Order: sequence, then C-alpha cells, then structure tokens
Amino acid sequence: MRKLGIFLSLSLDGYYCDRNGDMSWAHREDPEFKAFVTGNAASGGELLMGRVTYELMASYWPTPFAMEREPETAEGMNSLPKVVFSRTLKAAGWSNSRLVSGSLVEEVRSMKAGEGRDMVVLGSASIVRQLAEAGLVDDYQFVVVPIALGGGRSVFEGLSRQLHLKLTGTRAFRNGNVLLSHITSD
Amino acid sequence: MRKLGIFLSLSLDGYYCDRNGDMSWAHREDPEFKAFVTGNAASGGELLMGRVTYELMASYWPTPFAMEREPETAEGMNSLPKVVFSRTLKAAGWSNSRLVSGSLVEEVRSMKAGEGRDMVVLGSASIVRQLAEAGLVDDYQFVVVPIALGGGRSVFEGLSRQLHLKLTGTRAFRNGNVLLSHITSD
Repeated sequence: MRKLGIFLSLSLDGYYCDRNGDMSWAHREDPEFKAFVTGNAASGGELLMGRVTYELMASYWPTPFAMEREPETAEGMNSLPKVVFSRTLKAAGWSNSRLVSGSLVEEVRSMKAGEGRDMVVLGSASIVRQLAEAGLVDDYQFVVVPIALGGGRSVFEGLSRQLHLKLTGTRAFRNGNVLLSHITSD
Repeated sequence: MRKLGIFLSLSLDGYYCDRNGDMSWAHREDPEFKAFVTGNAASGGELLMGRVTYELMASYWPTPFAMEREPETAEGMNSLPKVVFSRTLKAAGWSNSRLVSGSLVEEVRSMKAGEGRDMVVLGSASIVRQLAEAGLVDDYQFVVVPIALGGGRSVFEGLSRQLHLKLTGTRAFRNGNVLLSHITSD
C-alpha cells in the first residue's frame, strides 16, 4: 500500500490563494525554508497535481533560468515521476510526466493499492479536496504563513464532513512559516 | 501605553466557528491544555469581549458548576476586570465587568493610551476584525485545532488589507492544538 500525502501553504485565515487567485504571498523564501523545500523535492516520491499546478511548474522548472537559480530543486522536480490529472490537457510534455484523464479518485485508489513510491500532491486544491473527501489522504502537511488575507479560497470549502486530523509534528522556520504535520485520525 | 492582544481558536481552514455557528470542535481539553488556559486566566490582564462572548461566559463562569469543575479558571475569569462592547446590552452584571456602548475603536484607542494592565480580547470575532483593521492589536495568539471544518466564519473576512504578522513562538500541545504567537509587523 503506497501512502499519499498533501503539501500546501495556507494563510492564517486558511486560504491557499487570495480573492484574486494570487499565491505570491506564500513565497517567503529564506535559506532555511529553501533547504527544506529542496529536501522535499529530493525525497523521491511521486508527485500528483492538477492542470493548473502542472502548467505553472512545467513552465518554470525545466527552464535554464530555474536550473541556474535553483539547481537542486529543479533537478528533483524534473526527474521525479509526475502524474497530472486533467480532462482538458492533450499531453504532458514535462519530463517524467504522465497524464491521467479518467476518474481522479479511482485512479488514485488503484495507484495506492499498487507497488511503488509514496505519493504527494503539490498544491492543486481541487484535487486535495476530492481526495480528502474520498478518505484517500494519509498525511497532511500545511505550511502556515503568518499573514491574514481577509478573503480567498479554501481548499476544504464544501467538504461534506469535518476532517479530524492528528498532529504529528511542527517546525517553525525563521521566515515565520510554521509546518504542521498530521495524519488522518478518523 | 497598554498592549492589546487577541486570543482565538481557529480550525486548519481558518474558521472560528463552523457553518452553524458551532465552536464546540475547539474544545479539546486535556490536562496540559487546561493548565495553559488556566495560566492565561490567572495572568491578570483586562479582558475585552463582545456581547455574544460575554453572555456565553457570564452564563457559565459565575455558576457553582464552574466553580466546582474548574475552580482556578473560574476564579480568574470572575475576578479579572472585563469590558464588554455592546450597543444592545443594558447592563453587565458579571463581577468586575464594565459595559461600553460607544465606539469600540475610539474606546480601545483611549484605553491603550492610558495606564493599566495589558488587555486581551477573548473570542469575539467581530471585535477582533475591527481592532485589527484599525491597527490596534499588538499581538495575535491563535490556537490552531487539527480539524478542517469545510466551511464556517472567518474572523478576518472582509479585512480591507492583508495583515502581515511576525511569528514569535509556537507551542504544540498533546491534544494536537498548536499555539502560534505573533506580533504585528507592519
């Protein structure tokens, strides 16, 4: 059984993007936080994402600019196996990417039952919500950014039941971000 | 200059109450968390609150039931000076309470400029939002409860600008709650 995790930045008021869809407030990089993200990218899981996150990442990580600026993270992001879930994308040209246009929940359930690396969903709020709703997420990592946006979009909006989690760890970064790690508890 | 703090429990998706106004999910008491809350109640500040929080607390803390069940916290809550902001309440009968029916922001600005104990707003989301908007809050303490509600009310909903905070400390409790302490940074 492969484990499935999610990794998402949230504002103090629980939004992954502001009222205009902007997520730039979540980027508060400092050397310590960057090393953490790079370590994540090198940890060797399989990355799951939706079209929006895929297109954002595929337009950056393979570029010479990214390779120059963040060589380790770029190397990790380009070489890791990736699955993009989309009914509208025609092809996924980024290295080591696979396009799935069928049912997200059924595909992930089948992937979890098979052999292979652990999986992590990057960003991709709509995917997180569907997988959480289906009870397929094993662990939740949230980076809480010390900002209140006053409005925005919540990854759990519309969840049909409360999601009870069990805290497994915390880590505070010097840039003020706090990582909260959980596993599901029900 | 007196300092003003806020203390509020939030779900992982940033809500202080769920879609039905319920806040019972935030009560996950265990001995460690209870000792922390009791210590807060004994720390001797002046408590600020709105009518809803006031009525909730005034109906519980002075009762023999509360004195029996949580004697230290009840003693603290009953003896601390309290200010309730309301335009509809006629009187504030709870011991050591004062009713203010004028402008919240002007009254708090004037209280801050005077001499006296530090002040903390308990719960009272609408008051927190107005004081945050007016730039009158010096420190923000959030207890992040490991639950996603899927919907509810956000204390910062409608804030006209982003609120940038500086993390000053974290504390994880065995019940999974995480205290995030901040001061304002802009």
